Amino acid sequence: MQLPKFTIQLPEWVAEYIDHAPKIFPGIEDRMDFVIELSRKNIDHQTGGPFGAAVFDADGRLIAPGINMVTTANCSILHAEMVAIALAQKVLGRFDISDGGKFDFALFATTEPCAMCFGAIPWSGVRRLVCGARKEDAQAIGFDEGPKLENWTAALLDRGIDVIQDVRRERATAVLNDYVKYGGRIYNPGGKI
Amino acid sequence: MQLPKFTIQLPEWVAEYIDHAPKIFPGIEDRMDFVIELSRKNIDHQTGGPFGAAVFDADGRLIAPGINMVTTANCSILHAEMVAIALAQKVLGRFDISDGGKFDFALFATTEPCAMCFGAIPWSGVRRLVCGARKEDAQAIGFDEGPKLENWTAALLDRGIDVIQDVRRERATAVLNDYVKYGGRIYNPGGKI
Repeated sequence: MQLPKFTIQLPEWVAEYIDHAPKIFPGIEDRMDFVIELSRKNIDHQTGGPFGAAVFDADGRLIAPGINMVTTANCSILHAEMVAIALAQKVLGRFDISDGGKFDFALFATTEPCAMCFGAIPWSGVRRLVCGARKEDAQAIGFDEGPKLENWTAALLDRGIDVIQDVRRERATAVLNDYVKYGGRIYNPGGKI
Repeated sequence: MQLPKFTIQLPEWVAEYIDHAPKIFPGIEDRMDFVIELSRKNIDHQTGGPFGAAVFDADGRLIAPGINMVTTANCSILHAEMVAIALAQKVLGRFDISDGGKFDFALFATTEPCAMCFGAIPWSGVRRLVCGARKEDAQAIGFDEGPKLENWTAALLDRGIDVIQDVRRERATAVLNDYVKYGGRIYNPGGKI
């Protein structure tokens, strides 16, 4: 049997965007603006859904970006957060981003995580999660967030992961709304479109 | 910026194993035995943690195998179930394995899913989940299953995904126990080993 293999590869426009971005993003709003612009460019380039993410170090250096590539890569696990986590681990050369608790890296996401990405966060080794739009904002345009714990922020805090919500929420939500306005595909599995 | 990329690639012994396996696995025990043997070989070859998975079609044809590759690929999202889902979607060429509800594919997993893999299942398009060992069996050797809904099987059923538990549970648990017995690494993020 020829074994299948699968490569997570960002589109070229991401490299161009990063080349023109600052080397350090001082505040959390700057970092969130960066990932919101990723989500905006992802819909402009039609390379995936309206979601962006990135892993930053404690000083605000970008470690790895992520965009939603479900429909373009034909892979349901390629939410923006999963892409950012996998690529950050590739860049750092370890599966625990914190390296045994020594480093404070943060995951930024334009929308609060779905059930899968929520479950992936404790395994990643990030120590902080910063979100823009809320579940309600994604659901308002038809996206499903999955079966997630009601008290998901507390569950992350219990595991030593801080959660900051509503950072640039309106700006993040505007991208979600524009995605629908310009005919973006609301994909859901099992025929439920 | 040179964009990072990441490839999910199974070790070569998986191809050899599949070449010697039947073309059709008639019963669910046969399919579970196949994935348990994947988990066994994964610890024998020291290519990852003691977990195996696979996607099968309704007739019992293997679509794609998965093994845990967290420590060897340095990627926390590479649980066996995630690998099997991503590779099955690659083989089938679609992010919804069911293709809009037309096909009944099943995900087999040697241990019930952790919080991340649980959240990934509704997005994958599989219509059935079959598990061997229970959460308690993985926790007994020190693995963390993450913050998962108490009623996770009901949550999947609500979404049209059947769950069958305890298929060859003892045999699946024996691999978990042997992993520890022979010095396998219980990895957990954030320095909690």
